[in-house]
Amino acid sequence: MTDRIRDFLRSRRDDGPCMVLDLDVVRDNYASFAKALPDTRVFYAVKANPAPEVLDLLARMGSCFDTASVVEIEQVLATGASPDRISFGNTIKKERDIARAFQLGIRLFAVDCEAEVEKIARVAPGSKVFCRMLCDGAGAEWPLSRKFGCVPEMAGRVLEQAHRLGLVAYGLSFHVGSQQRNPLMWDGALRSASTIFKDLAERGITLQMVNLGGGFPTKYLKDVPAVKAYGQAIFRSLRKHFGNRIPETIIEPGRGMVGNAGVIEAEVVLISKKSEADTMRWVYLDIGKFNGLAETMDEMIRYPIRTEFDGDATEPCVLAGPTCDSVDVLYEKDPYELPLSLEIGSKVLIEGTGAYTTTYSAVGFNGFPPLRSYVI
Amino acid sequence: MTDRIRDFLRSRRDDGPCMVLDLDVVRDNYASFAKALPDTRVFYAVKANPAPEVLDLLARMGSCFDTASVVEIEQVLATGASPDRISFGNTIKKERDIARAFQLGIRLFAVDCEAEVEKIARVAPGSKVFCRMLCDGAGAEWPLSRKFGCVPEMAGRVLEQAHRLGLVAYGLSFHVGSQQRNPLMWDGALRSASTIFKDLAERGITLQMVNLGGGFPTKYLKDVPAVKAYGQAIFRSLRKHFGNRIPETIIEPGRGMVGNAGVIEAEVVLISKKSEADTMRWVYLDIGKFNGLAETMDEMIRYPIRTEFDGDATEPCVLAGPTCDSVDVLYEKDPYELPLSLEIGSKVLIEGTGAYTTTYSAVGFNGFPPLRSYVI
Repeated sequence: MTDRIRDFLRSRRDDGPCMVLDLDVVRDNYASFAKALPDTRVFYAVKANPAPEVLDLLARMGSCFDTASVVEIEQVLATGASPDRISFGNTIKKERDIARAFQLGIRLFAVDCEAEVEKIARVAPGSKVFCRMLCDGAGAEWPLSRKFGCVPEMAGRVLEQAHRLGLVAYGLSFHVGSQQRNPLMWDGALRSASTIFKDLAERGITLQMVNLGGGFPTKYLKDVPAVKAYGQAIFRSLRKHFGNRIPETIIEPGRGMVGNAGVIEAEVVLISKKSEADTMRWVYLDIGKFNGLAETMDEMIRYPIRTEFDGDATEPCVLAGPTCDSVDVLYEKDPYELPLSLEIGSKVLIEGTGAYTTTYSAVGFNGFPPLRSYVI
Repeated sequence: MTDRIRDFLRSRRDDGPCMVLDLDVVRDNYASFAKALPDTRVFYAVKANPAPEVLDLLARMGSCFDTASVVEIEQVLATGASPDRISFGNTIKKERDIARAFQLGIRLFAVDCEAEVEKIARVAPGSKVFCRMLCDGAGAEWPLSRKFGCVPEMAGRVLEQAHRLGLVAYGLSFHVGSQQRNPLMWDGALRSASTIFKDLAERGITLQMVNLGGGFPTKYLKDVPAVKAYGQAIFRSLRKHFGNRIPETIIEPGRGMVGNAGVIEAEVVLISKKSEADTMRWVYLDIGKFNGLAETMDEMIRYPIRTEFDGDATEPCVLAGPTCDSVDVLYEKDPYELPLSLEIGSKVLIEGTGAYTTTYSAVGFNGFPPLRSYVI
């Protein structure tokens, strides 16, 4: 929560929930990443928040961009950033989207299997590709499934094939899991990466780059290590596994770049109990899983919530959204402590909501509009 | 799948996934409900699919409408249906939305606690209210949480309070769970309802209506009983618990009205394995949890998928969506049997997708547009 957001909300006249994002915080976050990892290029993960103001700011500061689709590529190009600052980082791409990206000047693509390499060789000849390796997401609050990547041995063969098909076998990527709270988690993947670098070098293929992925956390309720601690741990692992031949590195922060820059203002619509003897109150907000808080799925992300009654006595509450959908419940398995004095009509502030909120919003489920967002 | 949908898709030239909905099927479904429950008024659950063509058709056929928000109320009024055919069926409403609905002519509201009754008494004086009772959702594929409703004893007191505040204590509602495959599940709730009818009658309050909710299933992979079986089972329970004084009844089908009217056409973007020894293939589509298939959450709804290779040998596959989000996996715990001959670029048809797909779609997660829909 910043003074600028507080001032903005005080003067806001619109109705309904909204997310307010303070660009000053994004600016500080970018500077922290640049300082903590001075030899690493930052590729902002556009999917976390593609607001034009965010992309403009980061483009001006020199950031590069990790994109998931042609639309995201176009959003970045609209800032004036040149295509060589853009990675098409989705391992799952239609061949015609690769062709379109190539036409737009994109020359850096993610892959995790031979079929994807073949598509790129056909429609984006000569491009650089990096192969995503599977990586155990232990320690992450939003652990990644096996959806992206292949086992390290296969990654080597995928890159060999890229080389054979006239592409530049550029490097490797991995992702330690979103909201990763352990800075040491990069070490195992860097060890695997160094092995593949050596294996391919023996076959005459010189990899140049390791994409360290995202995973840098934003502070929700628990404290998280400073980005500096990540920089130090990663540098030590690079030194350990690559010695004096440290490759180019890139990072792809999304949540870590914009998460703590945003605050959602929401309203308490109803407070009730299910029976008169019930000790558990249900608190219903005008925002839920379908208009911004999708990351409460399985209660994975637990946002800090501020009310005007903080400091008063609290009681655990089930927190739910406003739709007629029974899965639109935010915290129930692990109820949320909220002030007893909280009232219907009270405003609440949901912090750390700058990432993965606005674009996750449903187009109009139950007739509720998508989350409104203001970038200040 | 209907011939009309097949013909439409054959001539379609747009790119990207889409949902095609055949109004003839909706017409048949409405007629089946009307025939199976001849003394029951049908309130279509607009949230299942608010496409104007669907609302227009149902309005012309005489349907009433269950709405979740002021926007949905306005969508129904746009068909020319009069406000007395609309229920504001969300138990979680802002007081200013109740006031707005009242201005629009709405006089029928759902409640499940005293605080909601107070709001309605203040801004929608004299309206009818019905109280939602909690109901065990056993047997449902999309079971409802405890989010809506209160225990039956409390429901009686909530209606008494409505009466005291000058509202019409109109009746009770319950919901046996979405995609409810057991027609006998209405019996227990009707028994509870009849007890409350008797209790309140003794205090001079005459309830008139039982809202039997939704829950009527659409056929996905498993066979479901015909709507006629539901009509018979419900009528038997009404007779058993209410004798000769059967109240007015309404039903709120959503999925049962439009689910089987829609088909999604999607494309295979990638087929890969995670290691060379892996026996499990990953099949990635251009549609996933964030652009239409949200109901695959926890693998709850399992849609039938048709391919041009049906009949060929199959193998279990993990099925996933196109976004860079690791939770965008449709079926993994219980992999999906798909033909070995399926290829990158193949089209697949996902059946039973007329309900809870288009509006659940994210505004633009990863830059992917919301699901396009055609109503024919």
